[in-house]
Amino acid sequence: MADRIYLDWNATTPLRPEARQAMLAAMDLLGNPSSVHAEGRKARRLMEEAREVIARGLGTVARRVVLTSGGTEANVLALSPGLKAPAGPAERLLVSATEHASVLAGGRFAPSAVQTIPVDSSGVVDLCGLDTLLAGGPPALVSVMSANNETGVLQPISEVAEIVRRGGGLLHVDAIQAFGKIHLDINGIGADLVTLSGHKIGGPKGVGALVLGAGVDDVIPLLRGGGQERGRRAGTENVIGIAGFGAAAGAALAALETEHLRVSALRNRLEAGLRQTENVTVFSAQAARLPNTTLFTAPGLKAETAVIGFDLEGIAVSSGSACSSGKVQPSHVLEAMGVSPSAAQGAVRLSLGWSTTDAEVDRCLQAWRKLSLTLLKGRDETALERF
Amino acid sequence: MADRIYLDWNATTPLRPEARQAMLAAMDLLGNPSSVHAEGRKARRLMEEAREVIARGLGTVARRVVLTSGGTEANVLALSPGLKAPAGPAERLLVSATEHASVLAGGRFAPSAVQTIPVDSSGVVDLCGLDTLLAGGPPALVSVMSANNETGVLQPISEVAEIVRRGGGLLHVDAIQAFGKIHLDINGIGADLVTLSGHKIGGPKGVGALVLGAGVDDVIPLLRGGGQERGRRAGTENVIGIAGFGAAAGAALAALETEHLRVSALRNRLEAGLRQTENVTVFSAQAARLPNTTLFTAPGLKAETAVIGFDLEGIAVSSGSACSSGKVQPSHVLEAMGVSPSAAQGAVRLSLGWSTTDAEVDRCLQAWRKLSLTLLKGRDETALERF
Repeated sequence: MADRIYLDWNATTPLRPEARQAMLAAMDLLGNPSSVHAEGRKARRLMEEAREVIARGLGTVARRVVLTSGGTEANVLALSPGLKAPAGPAERLLVSATEHASVLAGGRFAPSAVQTIPVDSSGVVDLCGLDTLLAGGPPALVSVMSANNETGVLQPISEVAEIVRRGGGLLHVDAIQAFGKIHLDINGIGADLVTLSGHKIGGPKGVGALVLGAGVDDVIPLLRGGGQERGRRAGTENVIGIAGFGAAAGAALAALETEHLRVSALRNRLEAGLRQTENVTVFSAQAARLPNTTLFTAPGLKAETAVIGFDLEGIAVSSGSACSSGKVQPSHVLEAMGVSPSAAQGAVRLSLGWSTTDAEVDRCLQAWRKLSLTLLKGRDETALERF
Repeated sequence: MADRIYLDWNATTPLRPEARQAMLAAMDLLGNPSSVHAEGRKARRLMEEAREVIARGLGTVARRVVLTSGGTEANVLALSPGLKAPAGPAERLLVSATEHASVLAGGRFAPSAVQTIPVDSSGVVDLCGLDTLLAGGPPALVSVMSANNETGVLQPISEVAEIVRRGGGLLHVDAIQAFGKIHLDINGIGADLVTLSGHKIGGPKGVGALVLGAGVDDVIPLLRGGGQERGRRAGTENVIGIAGFGAAAGAALAALETEHLRVSALRNRLEAGLRQTENVTVFSAQAARLPNTTLFTAPGLKAETAVIGFDLEGIAVSSGSACSSGKVQPSHVLEAMGVSPSAAQGAVRLSLGWSTTDAEVDRCLQAWRKLSLTLLKGRDETALERF
């Protein structure tokens, strides 16, 4: 697939060379990090070095990083009743309407204990709505993502944190899409719990972390029966994956500022090109967004058909979240923003990354101009039949 | 560590060349297995091929394999109240006294709903005790491991399954140590749920599986919020790790019979050599055991000191389970077998694998003869001071 163009970085990223190198080195280690012999100690050291890099990336220390099998596990580990909030143990969960499915599922809270915080038409969380919800019940854990995976919208986390603090609650931030793309400091933004994932920053799939803010000392373990991760998460550690995650985090964070500039310039050019087609809408264009994400549509577009069309043109794009297999439903994110189901079903996501080039943006725009001729203007049903 | 000898295969194994190769290939794949474009489909195909190999290794089909982040997660996924047993939903959990810590922790059962099945002095589960426990309460999920990680003892799983079936319960078998070392057929042995782990068979750490027997269609998901693994386990899959697990399983199963003969011959020679030291005891020597495991002691031996002594001689061995970090406690396995605490604290485990050679066994025995001069005969306190 040398000629292929990959513009689905929010679904998963290519492995960074630094991550690959670290994983190759980890493959040669024999030991179990829990073993006391030299082989065990060496594996533990490698793992702890990775943890250190991840911690630094969030402005905290290694012992506050709980390594997990990915973002979903970190979210379920975070979202548990009984966590000690300033006003008492969290008895309910408030989630913004545009959270990832693994947060919307509520973790270990009973469905009846989960309430939804509305968002505005750009997908930005409604701060007054949050305030009202917090005031109207027992101590809450609040979960608001740093950046949305579909639209790229950035949430006003510091303001959210301030309101949650005033309301006696705790704040969990799913920073999976934001980490490595924008600057984040767990205590600076006022988060109590932050979820990270390896494969969105150039690390491997199947590794992530839950990071604890200064105000939280404990989580309620999900996997028990072993002292790993300071008793917070039992099970032999994914040493190779963790090594890759650490190396990817180091590389992503080192390049953060230059890549932010470079990628946002590419994204702006991409969006300007798309808008040359009549009636193209870029979702959340007026809100603060990640530098790499464009979610767009045009009247008559069907996302499923468009994804297949781009794929046949050699370009990998997405119709929104790829985190759940086999689902063909309108996006809950766009629904929460008040977008009509027909417009939502036309939403196509282009997400860029560190290897995205000017030439790739050009080829993507070329492909779009070609596809738009057949996919738009009510001709989408004919087009659907062709595939 | 070219000169080092690794005899701690029950803690974790070196990566098999076949697993490394498969992981390198998987590193080049860009896609998320849930994405519909070519990159996504390719990642999914690789993952499904691995699942197929793992399924065949247990005599079942791919759709009955739930891939997890390891044995601990698979155990917690398996051990949940509400699973449909023939006599009704499981309301309690019966675990043999020598199970792994992640099973003893009871998964998602309340501590008050967990009961212990006794074992005999060899560590073999007490079948009459199981029968009595099953008769004395509501429908139960029973968890008995196929092979013990410390002693290597094989449990009479088919007999256990027969008793559980008669008692209207369900049977979970932790086959982490047995898989790839002895022949296992999930339906042949009558198990409803079987736990596997990648890193005990030459795959990477951080990947495992829960396999469902013919009588069980569903588990109660632990990670929710995504359609992966047929809705049984949400979260983006560890594609690289899964590829390695599949390749390791294929290699381990292909070599199973020849390696069983080869390794058990090495183990027998090792034990004969150890027994030349006065009063050496090999635990569970009279019971059926894995071909690769020797747990031994001698009067006056302190395992912690011995592990460090072997390590300084260039040999990685263990003082029992390495699955839990920082714990220095007598083994619950030996305690359940009625071994005295002082004898239990002297237990050293030597576990062998596919790269273990005759020369390594010789060097281990040489090291033991040297160490035993200082470590035994009441001189262990002096020895402890030296390290």
